[in-house]
Amino acid sequence: MKALQDSAVAIVGLGLMGGSLALALREQNVCRKIIGVTRNPRTRAEALARGVVDAASADLGLVAEADVVVLATPVRTILSQLPQVGAVARAGTVVMDFGSTKRDIVAAMQSLPPHIEPIGAHPMCGKETSGFESSEASLYRDAVFVLTPLGRTSPQTLALAESLAAALGAHPIVLDAARHDRIVAAVSHLPFALSAALTATADELARADDQVNSLAASGFRDTSRLAASDVTMMLDILMTNRENVTDLLRACGHHLDELANLIAAGEEPALRLRLERAAESRRGWFK
Amino acid sequence: MKALQDSAVAIVGLGLMGGSLALALREQNVCRKIIGVTRNPRTRAEALARGVVDAASADLGLVAEADVVVLATPVRTILSQLPQVGAVARAGTVVMDFGSTKRDIVAAMQSLPPHIEPIGAHPMCGKETSGFESSEASLYRDAVFVLTPLGRTSPQTLALAESLAAALGAHPIVLDAARHDRIVAAVSHLPFALSAALTATADELARADDQVNSLAASGFRDTSRLAASDVTMMLDILMTNRENVTDLLRACGHHLDELANLIAAGEEPALRLRLERAAESRRGWFK
Repeated sequence: MKALQDSAVAIVGLGLMGGSLALALREQNVCRKIIGVTRNPRTRAEALARGVVDAASADLGLVAEADVVVLATPVRTILSQLPQVGAVARAGTVVMDFGSTKRDIVAAMQSLPPHIEPIGAHPMCGKETSGFESSEASLYRDAVFVLTPLGRTSPQTLALAESLAAALGAHPIVLDAARHDRIVAAVSHLPFALSAALTATADELARADDQVNSLAASGFRDTSRLAASDVTMMLDILMTNRENVTDLLRACGHHLDELANLIAAGEEPALRLRLERAAESRRGWFK
Repeated sequence: MKALQDSAVAIVGLGLMGGSLALALREQNVCRKIIGVTRNPRTRAEALARGVVDAASADLGLVAEADVVVLATPVRTILSQLPQVGAVARAGTVVMDFGSTKRDIVAAMQSLPPHIEPIGAHPMCGKETSGFESSEASLYRDAVFVLTPLGRTSPQTLALAESLAAALGAHPIVLDAARHDRIVAAVSHLPFALSAALTATADELARADDQVNSLAASGFRDTSRLAASDVTMMLDILMTNRENVTDLLRACGHHLDELANLIAAGEEPALRLRLERAAESRRGWFK
């Protein structure tokens, strides 16, 4: 297997994640060649014109020229692209993905031909705007970069994935795919669903009262931010992590019910206890 | 009534809101004298030493020397301080408050002696850290500054309150107290409760899995931020806005239930419709 420095890296999907990856690889100058695969002709033209990629195509067949393939498309697009990539990639090609859920993807990677070197990845970063135009070379800097190797993943492939993460300024950690999916349901998919439910609730009032928008300050802005996430990407995430997300939505709904009951009944000591516990816990999360 | 420029302003409570008010008034040099009332001896000493206030005391009786009194304490402290202020303030003194709910406060202001000039206010700003040490002169800049005048509030008092807001760089708007409380339940108190419920839910998983914290990125950070708010302040807010908050928590819980049901059943078209609507709505809120 070639070192990253000698590799041609094909990035499939030049949205926020793929575009930022291309920018970071270019800026750090850590691979031999960057190939972009996207169906968007404007993105191809812009990426080529700005020198972000060395070659660009709408044709997934171009991954045959790569030593490393990174699938940076929504989860279910990755699932449909994996067999195609497996059919054309050269022996020894490392195939990784940046999908936000990992169980289904790692299961699909299991079916790749034996001469392919698969590994799952999920860089824990993003923002509420999407597309190539939102990309930035610094997106991955200081982010946790989850790697979900398969039983068949070779130590060399894991090492190459770790060196890719390090080149982006990210911190690689290795996790089991099922454990990853459970955790991100709590720290990423649940927050998204809460943001969407908050926005829907506030929107109902805003349609009846034209001053609701005026009074929305930084608290509402931050808590509702994720509701503006790309819906196609989020649907893929929710549909490939249904059980975990449903469990956590119900658990959180239960906490909300309890808060509502305590508030309605004016049960202050019990309410204070819960709120103090949450405040203390939140202060401990980000130190 | 004196103009703001000729007024001695007494600020009761030198936490984040009161401290920032004192800093902004000093920086803008828009009043004759700044008096700080706080029970915290360290804050008194620091505010005096830094020249943020001209006089400081633990004694609420000091408001007798003021032309304008601003109560910047938690809502229920304001409710208990109002009669005391009414008993000692001079004729013509403007008494305003910065409480986060307005109905109970405006009702209590109604009982002030007729020679007092009351008006409610709620500057829509804040952060998740509290106390004098978190204060900053720029806190109110560009914030919406809600004014809730009473039937008895004179045009001169309203004008003085508007000039105070303008001096802080804030944008005054006049609202009925009941309408204010309904709106902030949606854009401020509901987001806080969602943050607390999210933190409690994620915390349950974090106690069983030591990698939960590692994977919490900006999405979780922003959505859970309000959970770290000052609990005593929030309890006062929730307890003086119980009906609105309970209504909105139940409405939001209903939206969450529906999302959970659609996800569990894999009903994608209906789920997409809701998520698209929330995303579009959120993009429209902050342009």
